Amino acid sequence: MKEKEHLIFGIRAIIEAINSGKTIEKLYLQKDINGALISDLRKLIKEKGIAVSHVPVQKLNKLTPGNHQGVAGYTTPIQLFDVEDLVTKLIEEKKTPLILLLDGITDVRNFGAICRTAECAGVDAIVIPNQGAAQINGDAIKTSAGALHRIPVCRVNNLTDTVFLLKELNLQIVGCTEKANSSIYEIDFSSPTAIIMGSEEKGISNQLLKFCDVKAKIPMAGNIASLNVSVASGIILYEAVKQRSN
Amino acid sequence: MKEKEHLIFGIRAIIEAINSGKTIEKLYLQKDINGALISDLRKLIKEKGIAVSHVPVQKLNKLTPGNHQGVAGYTTPIQLFDVEDLVTKLIEEKKTPLILLLDGITDVRNFGAICRTAECAGVDAIVIPNQGAAQINGDAIKTSAGALHRIPVCRVNNLTDTVFLLKELNLQIVGCTEKANSSIYEIDFSSPTAIIMGSEEKGISNQLLKFCDVKAKIPMAGNIASLNVSVASGIILYEAVKQRSN
Repeated sequence: MKEKEHLIFGIRAIIEAINSGKTIEKLYLQKDINGALISDLRKLIKEKGIAVSHVPVQKLNKLTPGNHQGVAGYTTPIQLFDVEDLVTKLIEEKKTPLILLLDGITDVRNFGAICRTAECAGVDAIVIPNQGAAQINGDAIKTSAGALHRIPVCRVNNLTDTVFLLKELNLQIVGCTEKANSSIYEIDFSSPTAIIMGSEEKGISNQLLKFCDVKAKIPMAGNIASLNVSVASGIILYEAVKQRSN
Repeated sequence: MKEKEHLIFGIRAIIEAINSGKTIEKLYLQKDINGALISDLRKLIKEKGIAVSHVPVQKLNKLTPGNHQGVAGYTTPIQLFDVEDLVTKLIEEKKTPLILLLDGITDVRNFGAICRTAECAGVDAIVIPNQGAAQINGDAIKTSAGALHRIPVCRVNNLTDTVFLLKELNLQIVGCTEKANSSIYEIDFSSPTAIIMGSEEKGISNQLLKFCDVKAKIPMAGNIASLNVSVASGIILYEAVKQRSN
């Protein structure tokens, strides 16, 4: 997977890509650029919640081989899914959804490693936010051992809205956090479930934490008390796998 | 932890370090070098099972700031433990040992990540072979999030001998391998146990596999069927944690 294959640039090319349904992974917009077309693009960016970096023209000159007109971006190298459609379909098929929400996981390798583990555990979908998530790029796909081509990924404007949506669809929301009284082994994963994992540094944001139906921690025996987030994901997901296989 | 702090060079300095009980992480020996002292050193290397790379003189010139006399090496930045002493002590203290044996885990980051997870799970010791294991260097310590300073590591000449020793001490030997009929959830981890993990590429060597009391696999739901070895270690170790907490 070459990064270059997913590079697009030029105002109309970017607008066209967005309007035709392509997902923009990240957009680089020249600082202080203006004009009617750029205004249209800005509206579109806001509407779709696309992550934007405002960069000096030199960055764009370096990134692109041609006339970039002040804007360049990468399209997402994998197909993305709509979380509502996907979960609704699972419920219609009488399946018991297991969804993984990633809050603030910005490290590409951690993201890839989690996707790899989630695919092995049979997770139905991974949900990440538009802003404040790792880029889905060649590195992420490589670290995922190809799992990113296998497991559905949903990107949403707002994780809190997704939590409300999943509650509406009768999923229990489990926050994996050390700020919990229960251990993961006390949770019943046999019903439709969404698990939220936070970053190693910050954990799950308070905003999301307060909407969790249950909070669960992984017991810590040692002194460092710090599991890597992809290992922690594996441990909680496999507890769900175990319970569901009984 | 600076790598340089653990660098030693010069024939007598190396011999002295070995004789004084320091553990040599890795030794670089100049190709085609000879002499009486070098012969003494060669005997010592063989006796202690020290890993040696035979390198051109340029490599040694680059590695060291001074007169290396054809040999340089790194001392191990952590204290190492004797597996027999350690397990015997645990049994005397009426504890239920949980030991992790790593077979062919040569990747420094995987090794560090496994140590981090093992420390969180309360593993009593990690056993690695002298040859064919990851170096215990600054990178390993960093990836372990400092766990390598907390969890006892034992380095042995031969893992098969260690397996026999542990069997003598009444530990059950569990091989974590996809070549298994049982799942990890069917294993009873409540008795003294040593778990063997193999590399992602090769798994546990056949030599070791045949001495396992039980073989256990982690169930795979997806298509890629390939967990990272540190994640796999976390999943099996935490199954033991769970069973022992009941």
